[in-house]
Amino acid sequence: MEVKIIRKVLDVNDAIAHKNRNLFKEKGIFVINVMSSPGSGKTSILEKTLSHLVPEVSCAVIVGDISTTNDADRLAKQNAPVVQINTDGFGGDCHLTAHVIESALSSFDLDKIDLLIVENVGNLVCPAEFDIGEDKRVVILSVAEGEDKPVKYPLMFRVCDAALLNKIDLLPYLDYDKNAALENISKIHPDMPVFEVSAKTQEGFSKWIEWLKECIREKKKQGK
Amino acid sequence: MEVKIIRKVLDVNDAIAHKNRNLFKEKGIFVINVMSSPGSGKTSILEKTLSHLVPEVSCAVIVGDISTTNDADRLAKQNAPVVQINTDGFGGDCHLTAHVIESALSSFDLDKIDLLIVENVGNLVCPAEFDIGEDKRVVILSVAEGEDKPVKYPLMFRVCDAALLNKIDLLPYLDYDKNAALENISKIHPDMPVFEVSAKTQEGFSKWIEWLKECIREKKKQGK
Repeated sequence: MEVKIIRKVLDVNDAIAHKNRNLFKEKGIFVINVMSSPGSGKTSILEKTLSHLVPEVSCAVIVGDISTTNDADRLAKQNAPVVQINTDGFGGDCHLTAHVIESALSSFDLDKIDLLIVENVGNLVCPAEFDIGEDKRVVILSVAEGEDKPVKYPLMFRVCDAALLNKIDLLPYLDYDKNAALENISKIHPDMPVFEVSAKTQEGFSKWIEWLKECIREKKKQGK
Repeated sequence: MEVKIIRKVLDVNDAIAHKNRNLFKEKGIFVINVMSSPGSGKTSILEKTLSHLVPEVSCAVIVGDISTTNDADRLAKQNAPVVQINTDGFGGDCHLTAHVIESALSSFDLDKIDLLIVENVGNLVCPAEFDIGEDKRVVILSVAEGEDKPVKYPLMFRVCDAALLNKIDLLPYLDYDKNAALENISKIHPDMPVFEVSAKTQEGFSKWIEWLKECIREKKKQGK
């Protein structure tokens, strides 16, 4: 009974995600859905990502949180339009849905956006189940979280198209086996690109930014 | 419609939680439900907690994960019976329910347990909504996760009875404002006890262990 109803909720979500995806295609907007545990560094990564891209690339951001506008306030300083969604208005939802993204789109001039970044609610489980119409899903994993998260939360790593291993500036102070973490990612999703970065020192950012720019170029080509 | 069904699921859960709670009372078992983001150090904290308590206190552990038995394998070395629940058998559930706890109890000799520790699925959102019949809820927050998590995930901090601020050995290497974190906890849940600890160095453990022992003593008294 419960399973059937969850299936119905997901079907409705998929239909709206499909609509969002068509709109993004029509407008030539490349969309990433950034997911992670709370505190893995999503907002810090995105602050630095925007600082590398704007104004060369026209960006917009949708930020999901249960409560507060802390993240949107931080990102708004990067000269890109930002919409904050607080899911406590939607029953404290632990993830963003396609419908919530659709509602937020009216705040933007979609003809002027090349890259839409969605920062999902901090949660390594539920957001993986909800298609929002994105082109690529990106998971951020902080080295402070241990090596085993990919095998313990396999769905997230299975559905994502790229991973960022963040906070590598902390490696000297942790008993962290980076190769074990990379092997665990590879077990769940072989050949997924993994970018080793530090939002604090900006180490490793050039490859991540190049990957994003290549995706944006590809999307523009497809649109024509 | 959706809201009504979620309400029904929670009502069923509450009824089983009530049953669990009565059983724990009858047996004089003190039960804690330990929750946090993935990678905050739940298992490391519990390994060290068990090493302080066993054999003086008779302990048992239920560990929830979506996948793998990594955590149970680690905890089983601490001379306490451990049951691992993999929620991927329950549709990849992002939290433990009262029903799942009830099923796990048959693995233990309840007459021989003083403290039952439940390590919930790593998730700072959904587990907060499900009563499992516990006496106290404990949230673990790692200093590597930033200062703002209590205000961004307020329900978890509102429903918990104690907080552990973990990984304080990393403080010298982080731009972390500990007072801001403590103020944020206090904003959401004034006067909640907060234990500043490091599972790595065992700094701060004596107060946490004393708090637990006092809770166990109180529960035994009530049972008589």
